[in-house]
Amino acid sequence: MKVDGVSYRSIWRDPSETTVTVVDQTLLPHRFDTLKLMNVADAIDAIKRMVVRGAPLIGVTGAYGYAMALRDDPSDANVDAAFDAINAARPTAVNLRWALEILRREIRDLAPDDRAVAAYVVADRLRAEDIETNGAIAEQGARLVREIYEANGRSRPVNILTHCNTGWIACVDWGTALGVIYRAHDDGIPVHVWVDETRPRNQGASLTTWELGSHGVPHTLIVDNAGGHLMQHGQVDICLVGADRVTASGDACNKIGTYLKALAAKDNHVPFYVVLPGSTIDWNMEDGVAEIEIEERASDEVTHISGVAGDGSIVKVRLAPKGTKVGNPAFDVTPARLVTGLVTERGVAEASRAGLLGLYPEKA
Amino acid sequence: MKVDGVSYRSIWRDPSETTVTVVDQTLLPHRFDTLKLMNVADAIDAIKRMVVRGAPLIGVTGAYGYAMALRDDPSDANVDAAFDAINAARPTAVNLRWALEILRREIRDLAPDDRAVAAYVVADRLRAEDIETNGAIAEQGARLVREIYEANGRSRPVNILTHCNTGWIACVDWGTALGVIYRAHDDGIPVHVWVDETRPRNQGASLTTWELGSHGVPHTLIVDNAGGHLMQHGQVDICLVGADRVTASGDACNKIGTYLKALAAKDNHVPFYVVLPGSTIDWNMEDGVAEIEIEERASDEVTHISGVAGDGSIVKVRLAPKGTKVGNPAFDVTPARLVTGLVTERGVAEASRAGLLGLYPEKA
Repeated sequence: MKVDGVSYRSIWRDPSETTVTVVDQTLLPHRFDTLKLMNVADAIDAIKRMVVRGAPLIGVTGAYGYAMALRDDPSDANVDAAFDAINAARPTAVNLRWALEILRREIRDLAPDDRAVAAYVVADRLRAEDIETNGAIAEQGARLVREIYEANGRSRPVNILTHCNTGWIACVDWGTALGVIYRAHDDGIPVHVWVDETRPRNQGASLTTWELGSHGVPHTLIVDNAGGHLMQHGQVDICLVGADRVTASGDACNKIGTYLKALAAKDNHVPFYVVLPGSTIDWNMEDGVAEIEIEERASDEVTHISGVAGDGSIVKVRLAPKGTKVGNPAFDVTPARLVTGLVTERGVAEASRAGLLGLYPEKA
Repeated sequence: MKVDGVSYRSIWRDPSETTVTVVDQTLLPHRFDTLKLMNVADAIDAIKRMVVRGAPLIGVTGAYGYAMALRDDPSDANVDAAFDAINAARPTAVNLRWALEILRREIRDLAPDDRAVAAYVVADRLRAEDIETNGAIAEQGARLVREIYEANGRSRPVNILTHCNTGWIACVDWGTALGVIYRAHDDGIPVHVWVDETRPRNQGASLTTWELGSHGVPHTLIVDNAGGHLMQHGQVDICLVGADRVTASGDACNKIGTYLKALAAKDNHVPFYVVLPGSTIDWNMEDGVAEIEIEERASDEVTHISGVAGDGSIVKVRLAPKGTKVGNPAFDVTPARLVTGLVTERGVAEASRAGLLGLYPEKA
């Protein structure tokens, strides 16, 4: 997608090099800068510090991190040690484990000296597949947006509510929920996006607004508290959100607060779609609320926030009294009963095992 | 309630003076300071800038502002002009109009020279009544908390979720939802409070945490997005929120985001109580969602935030890209069907016309 008229992707490598470059997302929207990851420690750090974020991009970054680990130490012992170290950087992200497992499977039986080259081939392929997958997701989802536009007699823009950031910057290109929006917009369907700010890390306020603004998509920033009120008053036609993990029965684990929006959508008969690549489906899990372990993140994500001060400098300020105790669950689970459908690269499925197996029969 | 061991109320006047003093809530929790309101313009400014906030305190402040207006100009023309000017400072707050109407009724037929003295008598009385009313509300609500404690076999603290700030600082003393919590705590019932930060103005993160901490009530700060997840996992026993306006049928207009918590409470069988003085009931309204006009507040409440920088100074920072368009509805309406009960100074009512008339038969 575009930044100041230039097309970018969120991660790339020069084929002649073994390092990768990423957009440093901790500086957005205040500064657009890139960061070179030299080794596996850099990759783990980038995942942990959320220099890279979004399930698909974390998966691809993890794969390149794994390749760099094998470049530096292709021993049998490091095949497992590097896998575990990278996977521990973000245990909730099923895409990370998924990417690492694919890579390990393909290099494990090779001679140590052959592992690094093969690992880069796999990582490059996962990156290319992510672009292809997200392009296909965007196409599938854009049909839903077009249907609403047509059903309203092409009389007004389609109002879409989204949570967190699921854009190209969370993937390699396109994005998941935002990819659908980009595709609809690029296809000439008038859209307007309500952007949840997405506390505590404010990925909506900082990244989604920045992405949509850079690409020219009309949008309005709101606090996370406002979506229910907008839905009560007919100002939302469809909700489109991403997912960090979807269970085989269609429960969706996504950024904290998603569940509240799904409840409001249900209460107001607003269609609520979760947009995801098939790799996000955890076929070994059924009951998302009971089974998914929710990451508890640091207190200062809630008590402190960074922004631009009057003099243009980036300043971190404290919002709560000193020593305030904080609870900071990073994700919640939206039960399948609240999900209108799951938008994947293969089509739109009902949020149920039967629905998902209809698109992924090989998992039966 | 206590600050550093000293008992305070949120507004007071020296009987020998015609000015009033308030706690400057825009500086909390970073600084505890008071502000003298010299005239009606100061009172209007204090209401608009949220130096004073919370429906009951706004009503009392408005009454003192009216008294100061009549002190300076007791003419017939000003009886109405001052009423309108003060009421326009916060049209959503039904308590403001309620207080102004009581005062006007009592001074209108007096000779102009007698109006100011009578107005101060009424304002002082409204202040005293607020303390009495909130004390009675606290007593009624504390019974619900005790029942939960007993039902759990006195085995653990009662987990209470609250939104925004409804404490003594929002009233004259006690508070509404927080008043219930103070009373339960002071009565020896172990409680633990989940404090929603309450974007965009963060009254929970800044004021509720400060109040609870100052009085010694155990609490944990969470983002507004987290409450649904906590309820899914049995970590909330009861929700207690305030209201800016409750319709005759029991719909509750309160700080934006309240509706989302009510939906989550319903979905997880958590009792959801709205705590209010009878003066908050708007007997002329039925359908809160359709009839209550929701105030749209300034964009910079969402795009900017103030906090304490590393050097101790209070700094305002920008969170979103420059020029981002913002929607900022300040309140939402929780339909009566989601409300377990309405806690008032006269008891706990079902959220319905019949329920409310049971407590306020004089309104039939």
